[in-house]
Amino acid sequence: MPGEIRLKAEVVRNFTAALFERLSLPAEDAERAAQVLVRADQRGVMSHGIKNLIMYTEGLTKGYMNPHPQIRAVAELPVTAVLDGDGGLGMVVGTHAMELAIAKAKTSGTGMVTVRRSHHFGMASFYSLMALPHDMIGIALTNNAGIAVVPTFGAEAMFSTNPISVVVPAGKEPPFELDMSTAVVAFNKVELAYIKGESVPLGWGLDASGETTSDAGGIVSSKLLLPLGGTQITGSHKGYGLGVVVDILCGVLSGGIYGNLIARQPSDDAYRDTSSTHFFAAIRIDAFRPVDEFKASMDDMLRALKDSKKAKGHDRIYVAGEIEHEIEAERLAHGIPYPLPLVERLQGLARQFEIPLEIGD
Amino acid sequence: MPGEIRLKAEVVRNFTAALFERLSLPAEDAERAAQVLVRADQRGVMSHGIKNLIMYTEGLTKGYMNPHPQIRAVAELPVTAVLDGDGGLGMVVGTHAMELAIAKAKTSGTGMVTVRRSHHFGMASFYSLMALPHDMIGIALTNNAGIAVVPTFGAEAMFSTNPISVVVPAGKEPPFELDMSTAVVAFNKVELAYIKGESVPLGWGLDASGETTSDAGGIVSSKLLLPLGGTQITGSHKGYGLGVVVDILCGVLSGGIYGNLIARQPSDDAYRDTSSTHFFAAIRIDAFRPVDEFKASMDDMLRALKDSKKAKGHDRIYVAGEIEHEIEAERLAHGIPYPLPLVERLQGLARQFEIPLEIGD
Repeated sequence: MPGEIRLKAEVVRNFTAALFERLSLPAEDAERAAQVLVRADQRGVMSHGIKNLIMYTEGLTKGYMNPHPQIRAVAELPVTAVLDGDGGLGMVVGTHAMELAIAKAKTSGTGMVTVRRSHHFGMASFYSLMALPHDMIGIALTNNAGIAVVPTFGAEAMFSTNPISVVVPAGKEPPFELDMSTAVVAFNKVELAYIKGESVPLGWGLDASGETTSDAGGIVSSKLLLPLGGTQITGSHKGYGLGVVVDILCGVLSGGIYGNLIARQPSDDAYRDTSSTHFFAAIRIDAFRPVDEFKASMDDMLRALKDSKKAKGHDRIYVAGEIEHEIEAERLAHGIPYPLPLVERLQGLARQFEIPLEIGD
Repeated sequence: MPGEIRLKAEVVRNFTAALFERLSLPAEDAERAAQVLVRADQRGVMSHGIKNLIMYTEGLTKGYMNPHPQIRAVAELPVTAVLDGDGGLGMVVGTHAMELAIAKAKTSGTGMVTVRRSHHFGMASFYSLMALPHDMIGIALTNNAGIAVVPTFGAEAMFSTNPISVVVPAGKEPPFELDMSTAVVAFNKVELAYIKGESVPLGWGLDASGETTSDAGGIVSSKLLLPLGGTQITGSHKGYGLGVVVDILCGVLSGGIYGNLIARQPSDDAYRDTSSTHFFAAIRIDAFRPVDEFKASMDDMLRALKDSKKAKGHDRIYVAGEIEHEIEAERLAHGIPYPLPLVERLQGLARQFEIPLEIGD
């Protein structure tokens, strides 16, 4: 498409890793962080990819993200752990924590790891996907300091979009890969409607006076999103409840941030007030059923869903992750299409940090 | 209120236990099952209480529910188990399974138990609430044979309302008690609107032709509910995804029923085709944080939510379970108000099975 340049994932990953090394990360951590971000772009989740390099660069240069965190367990049992991320990048702390959950599941059948004092970890499903090669179910949840969602009947942001990701292996079918925020919609969809001059459905967000509105501009300025379900009559108390569950498992269980705690009780901890907390779980399939039987049932279930009767005007039913799976295959073959402004931002970083970046022609 | 009779929970529980004993359940199991059903009524969840006694009576007399199941572990590790419910009542199998999850968490920090060949277990939060006295987080999920929810872009029921319940202890505040179906709304709310001649919001359900409708009668006859989120533009793919997660953890992981499997592959197992599968987890708080610190954080979070700014026209923000908690306190003091037709149904069962039932005057 015009206005886009296709870059090979490897090129972007190498560039991103080199940037993180310039920003003082150890080579191995720089490589991990780059993998997480570029995989998001590769799957079409551009909101969680290298678009955020500026945010991470700023955090590392201004000192509120820690390039060489001492990640440590503050509590641990064979099947559980609480990690303190020591202000590291979420991609570094997160991969470390999910690896720990997987190691625990290998030994014991399940593993649960909750994490405090980390930072924005990118795409949640990166971590739950890590369970797949081990024939495990992977779960990843996170909150962050950027609160944007109101409780049902509320008019004040009280939690972040608190995503839930659950990934489950299948056999011949692609895995089931759910990765959803517990808000009704992503904020960037509201921004996009605003830029296009379009209205949004009632039930996406509130205006500054706390009323539900179809005016995208009103939501852009209030920054108030509704929980999944929209209004109470269509179940927003459920999305609100799920958002709080994420805050509990990530924030309260780890002793980290949750809700609007930072606004009410700012600290002098250099890392806490920009931080993010996470929760990871890994569940070994063969603790429950033989893996081949389980995968055959998954295939059967996923196919039945796809083959079921379509609503008028639709000719395809998707299962979670199917679209991302198809995008990933195409982008691995043909490169990731980046909008020009984003490529220019990369070129700016390349000049600033003196890192080679091959754009091609 | 006119048209209602208040009955003491104890009276209804004793009657229900006596009925289950007449239906050949061992005294202990009869008492358990009665406790589960009457607690639902006590919390205002009347759709899952003794209203369903006819269903259980029929299942037990017709032989597709087993009054004396041999519940057995078909796979087990210290932290996990798969139970076969042998066609027992969900309330009997479910309490047994949740007790096992709690015992595992006591020893190891967490416990996960999945269950096949059980039946409708009543109110999901009964089981997650069992974790509270042990200072644990309790999780209960279930599916059942009564499929009613369509996938996004679908027009055929492919899973049941697949509820998720998560209960978390707090300190001075009442516990956080989430119990939500992953459908946008309960079917009985559609029926109620139909009886009253009211329309329902677009996004609750589909008519028989597969189109979203505000005609309650159209949904009552099609029996097609939409997933939480309603339509795709307001996030139904998320409710759909969560419904499938419940089906996976309960049905696929246990080797039991899921989706529309029964319709596609009926069996000659006397119990399977009316069955329900469950998933339970218990998480010991002190595996992660000192219990008093955790509870203080919970109190702080829950109070902050309740104290946050209200939307126009609202003067109170609730947290999950708060309404049920208040109803339960009132009903424990003054009895449970049952509508007359339901009381008459109880009296009918009392005559049929020759069980004393004190209605008062």
